Amino acid sequence: MNIEKKVINTMRTLSVDMIEKANSGHPGAPLGCAPMMFVLMCKIMIFNPSYPLWKERDRFIMSNGHGCALLYSILYLLGYNYTIEDLQNFRQLHSKTPGHPEFNPSLGIEISTGPLGQGIANGVGMAIASKKLGLNNYVYVMCGDGCLMEGVSYESTSLAGHLGLNNLIILYDDNKITIDGSTDLTFTENTKDRFIAMHWNVLEVEDGDNDINDIYNKLILAKSSVDKPTIIFIRTTIGYGSLLAGKNSCHGAPLGVENTKKLKQYLGLDENKYFFVDEDVKEYFKVFKKEKNINSNIDSEILQKDNIINELNIIKKLEKNYATRESSGMCLNIFAKYIENIIIGSADLGESNKTFVKTDIIGKYLHYGIREHAMCSIANGISTYDIIPVVSTFLVFITYCLAPIRMAALSNHKVIYIFTHDSILLGEDGPTHQPIESLTILRSIPNLLTIRPCDTKEVCGTYEIALEHNGPIAMIFTRQTISNIVNSDSEKIKYGAYIIYEPKQKIDLIIISTGSEVSIALDTIYFLEKEYKMNVRLISMPCTQLYDMQSNKYKENILPKNIKKISIEAGSTLGWYKYADYVYGIDRFGESGKMNDLKEKFGITVDSFSKFILDILNYIS
Amino acid sequence: MNIEKKVINTMRTLSVDMIEKANSGHPGAPLGCAPMMFVLMCKIMIFNPSYPLWKERDRFIMSNGHGCALLYSILYLLGYNYTIEDLQNFRQLHSKTPGHPEFNPSLGIEISTGPLGQGIANGVGMAIASKKLGLNNYVYVMCGDGCLMEGVSYESTSLAGHLGLNNLIILYDDNKITIDGSTDLTFTENTKDRFIAMHWNVLEVEDGDNDINDIYNKLILAKSSVDKPTIIFIRTTIGYGSLLAGKNSCHGAPLGVENTKKLKQYLGLDENKYFFVDEDVKEYFKVFKKEKNINSNIDSEILQKDNIINELNIIKKLEKNYATRESSGMCLNIFAKYIENIIIGSADLGESNKTFVKTDIIGKYLHYGIREHAMCSIANGISTYDIIPVVSTFLVFITYCLAPIRMAALSNHKVIYIFTHDSILLGEDGPTHQPIESLTILRSIPNLLTIRPCDTKEVCGTYEIALEHNGPIAMIFTRQTISNIVNSDSEKIKYGAYIIYEPKQKIDLIIISTGSEVSIALDTIYFLEKEYKMNVRLISMPCTQLYDMQSNKYKENILPKNIKKISIEAGSTLGWYKYADYVYGIDRFGESGKMNDLKEKFGITVDSFSKFILDILNYIS
Repeated sequence: MNIEKKVINTMRTLSVDMIEKANSGHPGAPLGCAPMMFVLMCKIMIFNPSYPLWKERDRFIMSNGHGCALLYSILYLLGYNYTIEDLQNFRQLHSKTPGHPEFNPSLGIEISTGPLGQGIANGVGMAIASKKLGLNNYVYVMCGDGCLMEGVSYESTSLAGHLGLNNLIILYDDNKITIDGSTDLTFTENTKDRFIAMHWNVLEVEDGDNDINDIYNKLILAKSSVDKPTIIFIRTTIGYGSLLAGKNSCHGAPLGVENTKKLKQYLGLDENKYFFVDEDVKEYFKVFKKEKNINSNIDSEILQKDNIINELNIIKKLEKNYATRESSGMCLNIFAKYIENIIIGSADLGESNKTFVKTDIIGKYLHYGIREHAMCSIANGISTYDIIPVVSTFLVFITYCLAPIRMAALSNHKVIYIFTHDSILLGEDGPTHQPIESLTILRSIPNLLTIRPCDTKEVCGTYEIALEHNGPIAMIFTRQTISNIVNSDSEKIKYGAYIIYEPKQKIDLIIISTGSEVSIALDTIYFLEKEYKMNVRLISMPCTQLYDMQSNKYKENILPKNIKKISIEAGSTLGWYKYADYVYGIDRFGESGKMNDLKEKFGITVDSFSKFILDILNYIS
Repeated sequence: MNIEKKVINTMRTLSVDMIEKANSGHPGAPLGCAPMMFVLMCKIMIFNPSYPLWKERDRFIMSNGHGCALLYSILYLLGYNYTIEDLQNFRQLHSKTPGHPEFNPSLGIEISTGPLGQGIANGVGMAIASKKLGLNNYVYVMCGDGCLMEGVSYESTSLAGHLGLNNLIILYDDNKITIDGSTDLTFTENTKDRFIAMHWNVLEVEDGDNDINDIYNKLILAKSSVDKPTIIFIRTTIGYGSLLAGKNSCHGAPLGVENTKKLKQYLGLDENKYFFVDEDVKEYFKVFKKEKNINSNIDSEILQKDNIINELNIIKKLEKNYATRESSGMCLNIFAKYIENIIIGSADLGESNKTFVKTDIIGKYLHYGIREHAMCSIANGISTYDIIPVVSTFLVFITYCLAPIRMAALSNHKVIYIFTHDSILLGEDGPTHQPIESLTILRSIPNLLTIRPCDTKEVCGTYEIALEHNGPIAMIFTRQTISNIVNSDSEKIKYGAYIIYEPKQKIDLIIISTGSEVSIALDTIYFLEKEYKMNVRLISMPCTQLYDMQSNKYKENILPKNIKKISIEAGSTLGWYKYADYVYGIDRFGESGKMNDLKEKFGITVDSFSKFILDILNYIS
């Protein structure tokens, strides 16, 4: 057996041994993909395991993340910071080798994958980022049938073809098998023609199980593309070499002791050795060097924070009432002016989301098209290059973006989401466009900041948080003009919640509110003060997650236990019981109508809210 | 002007007048699409406005739902139950003519649309339903660029081509303009080749603004397709006839008084008349008859409920412990046996979701492929034919399905969702596959029942609820085997929550739990009883929404105000403050590892939970 074949087979047996030991995992893909992975990583890609964060390195994404045993195997062999024990701890708690790849560039994991299709769109994002930074690297994505069936793959590859991303190369593990059986069951489109229609180069390797030279040649050819991304159809056999080869049954379950032994026999390796790497294989990786110039000329950006803050301070002083989406537009233009590494875009709602930036700012705006899902997945890829992606659509359409938003939260990618048209008060477009549950959904996602400011000052504060925050942040803005609040505070919103109105007398009640409902709450308080001599504190709580992080002392100070609290927000109340004794909101779908008619109908008025409060107080007393 | 042209121009001016009067809406699409709408509805489609619910009628879906002024205009002219006042109330609260079409077949609205791309997948679902019922009708979908850019359109058209749905015809309003500008900005794929690659017929109308005969001929041709769905590229001018024709600025804002006058001049109609339908146009629709045999041979299904209940009763008595997904699989097979009009499927996880039904049941299983989004949108379309769609995937992947789930809830479609692998306890697949926030997300959606049963008996009760419930229902099941609970009750779960364990002494505390955590809660109670002489009631609350619907008396009876309550669920706690004083759950992402290691790490154990309770009691006392 020549050494290359032996390396490949060692990758295969390492992977299978990992899965056997864990008694859990997916052997099918590693057995089929080992040859392409070998050629790609050992002969094509430029990187340095000793300097894994070198900026201009080629990137690899395993979009079929369930096959990660193979990825860990080769990263180990290449000299990334894995030991054989790490491989033996595959899929165990606290191991370096979890069940799907988890974002950790130091360990060669360029992005988290698992939910199918995401990796392809992540790769499009990385390829865009490389272009923006003027890097000369390539982004390689390995994927399977599942990835190509997912809508996000079409959305993102359509955009990639449109943009002519010649630095993007997909290795498609074309094994004709999905979990439920043959692709003949469901997936018979002419995939090659599909990619040609999307302006991609399409190459093919007929025998991906054995023909290493062909894989190599096609990758070289792909790298020479002038103006198109490339997909290489690599025909493989799922579970290659095992008794289950070619069958869906080897996708997601360990082979078992006997089948593993037989596999090793077939591959010409010792059936009685486990996690075995022979000396010549070790030698191969010793000789094999990836020493490239790791000194990149790409400097990290020095953020002009002072300039940004200075200009935001001007915005804060504007007295005119704006829709918060408009205030956001002003702040975003400041970001665009002073941040070099930023890519702003919208899913075809730039004017509505107020995310268009001045046209003299070159290279900072990206038209995503009507592709919300791809937009957010691409943003995750962009963020791995330390470029800040700002993406936008209507709030209700987070339903299209939730998979990549969750991945951003999981991997702590710095992505800024601008979601406008934030309640039924957007009016006539009706219930398909009116968010009800959207804020609750966003707030339920761990590690995602969701901020809904109540006026221009709070919008500026939100942008200041976004500037500093090292992770994903969803900024929620109104369509409609709302009133500036006297005591709103761009500093205090960093606590997530603060006292925005305090009565002169002893407090009877506390109202908690966010966004456009703060001014309604304030008017209600004025009314109750005047008519009923009530003393009500108002808390602006634009960000529940930031509030949760505060000290008990701070919390007790603004929301003392012994005083009754009522929340008001024009949306689902489900999440508000955490902070309030009584909740006021909208727990049904909206309707099409004029904003003011909707306010009346859904009770987002001083009249209706004050009646609710008076009822409660009667009930309490 | 010939009468047909006059009808078309009347549809145009009615639409524009509606938008002007509402001072809100989208004139671009109605002006461009009027000719194709006219030909389709007046010359091609078979239906009867006097019997709008005739089963074998052709279906029309306006996937570009923002253009609905046009749809309402022609439905009015055709004699559906609209008055001219209804048109004048466009986009007003409580009108029959909301800002986007809202599901109401009696009024000719076959499905709600608005979120782009959905209508195409809905059409695929309807076409599948027609085939299943053996109907001889056609499903027509009108769509724009936005719909074709959305991932769900690729997913669903790929499946439609695979299935050879020759009863599905898309009219593509190919106007080269999106909200942000020309399609050259983002959408330059060769769309025709894309559809050819997906095994569709592709036809073209070069002058969709004027060439009525060509539209007619191509529709006739489309109807003659033997084994393929058809898309007709109809080249139109957005905002045809107005000064803004061909510009993105006429997409989503009223034209204004002057432009409207000029439009009417251009169209040869009286610029000073509003909502005007001339006598010859009225006459045209009088003469024009759609009298077709409205007596369909298609009988409504008589559900064999007794048989289903009888067999579910057998399952309830099984003493063996199962994973609830396995119990679900047994119940689902009973549904499949006795319900003729059911289509069960999975996004390539049939074996994992336990949704495969016995192979001898013909025509009831559909392989959706790895297309969660399309699957759920297709289900919405299927449900409009009174066929029950049952769709399934892993719970965490609701992130891919949320847009159609929301639409199902909004339109009250009877769709049954089976979501398995319902917590971190699925184990090694790790955080990308482990739901945390998923249950909170589902529960925040209005009008969606979410049920998470705790054992086989409750699973049977869940299926009984699903049988009766007239709307969407999400059923949540475990991957892992869990213990049957002595007092679990398939009847009582219909209250959403009930007492599943009652101590003999006066109650100190109440625990509320769902699904796999009920048995942990029960073991905790036994422990506290034995070691601390505590008396703790246990509430099983598989469905918060059903509980919310109960009388205050029932609620006070099982969850009395004066007793402290603690919830436990292996997921986000955000929604539990509504029911409990203290919450126990998981508010961070999971990790890859063995189930038992994860239980320890995340505290889903008797030991950890009882410590939490004891701490609280110390704190209270």
